[in-house]
Amino acid sequence: MDADLYDVIHRRRDVRREFTGAPVDAAALERVLGAAHAAPSVGMTQPWDFVLVRDTALRTRFQAHVAAERETFDAELDAERATVFSRISVEGVLGASLGVVVTYDPTRGAPAVLGRHAIADTGLYSTCLAVQNLWLAATAEGWGVGWVSFYREPFLRELLGIPEHVRPVAWLCVGPVTALQEVPDLERHGWRARRPLAESVHADRWGVRA
Amino acid sequence: MDADLYDVIHRRRDVRREFTGAPVDAAALERVLGAAHAAPSVGMTQPWDFVLVRDTALRTRFQAHVAAERETFDAELDAERATVFSRISVEGVLGASLGVVVTYDPTRGAPAVLGRHAIADTGLYSTCLAVQNLWLAATAEGWGVGWVSFYREPFLRELLGIPEHVRPVAWLCVGPVTALQEVPDLERHGWRARRPLAESVHADRWGVRA
Repeated sequence: MDADLYDVIHRRRDVRREFTGAPVDAAALERVLGAAHAAPSVGMTQPWDFVLVRDTALRTRFQAHVAAERETFDAELDAERATVFSRISVEGVLGASLGVVVTYDPTRGAPAVLGRHAIADTGLYSTCLAVQNLWLAATAEGWGVGWVSFYREPFLRELLGIPEHVRPVAWLCVGPVTALQEVPDLERHGWRARRPLAESVHADRWGVRA
Repeated sequence: MDADLYDVIHRRRDVRREFTGAPVDAAALERVLGAAHAAPSVGMTQPWDFVLVRDTALRTRFQAHVAAERETFDAELDAERATVFSRISVEGVLGASLGVVVTYDPTRGAPAVLGRHAIADTGLYSTCLAVQNLWLAATAEGWGVGWVSFYREPFLRELLGIPEHVRPVAWLCVGPVTALQEVPDLERHGWRARRPLAESVHADRWGVRA
């Protein structure tokens, strides 16, 4: 396994339709989860967990919930946006090899979490850093990842028996793909174009162009 | 620039004391910010901004604020923890070449953000994915990154003139380092040990060991 960091960062895509569904190699999965687990975390709490969802019945129930949430969002759109949205897939729950549900446990390392006293969300931030490591490692393995967020947290917590104090952060569809798209789905389908980097960079104070 | 992804992921450290303070190469900084900007984002909103803080007066004011917040946290600790904490540095604000303040703008792409209707925090999550890309790219460049979270958001917003609707997510100390520690600071100084990956992995349902 030798994958150039910048190449992986720029090739990475949010995948819905290109999954092959083939079983994942166990050693590769261990590397990918190990990459996630090596992320930085506030107070070194490593507040994440990973629920590997392969069970078809569980995935089918989740997919039905996502489909209903898709309708909820669709109902908010005007006609033009709804037409564009109709071309866009928001999940690959059954098409992917497995789901990886990433959660956040605020009790880990508590109460005196070093780096969280002033900003409660830093633990949640740490969990997202693990997600990005996972995403890049999966890309290096020739897999795709698709982050599904068309769900209600209580539904997912109940579905997988996640304790009340633990927050689901992401359902990631993970597995081998036929190929990665060169252009992100939302841009390809006309939902939204990418923003030039220069517009997001400020020098010393907000609004001062670098 | 050729850096192996897994090597970078595992070498990466949260740096406070090892910064050289040398000016950063402009092309390398562009690569690092370009990596952050290539992160996935909900509804392709790219809701992040990057304020590059080099001004010494601004950094000095921020450092004083962080020192006061350190005292606030210290006052919560029992004697044993306070002794361990006294050995730990929580920032490298003036030692690093520059600060990169990463922010989140929830209005970008609003109101109909694809993927945010059910989970308001997904925009914040996207911003953290950009932080991790930045962190890994900086590591590949031979730099270090230190995430400072001993601050109050209103103070930082006021210091840099960040608009009210934009949320500061991170102050990152960034720049060349003499070396990266092999063992994370918090483990090295006895604050907390790393958790085995296996304890964080579940099969299909919470609590079922994989």
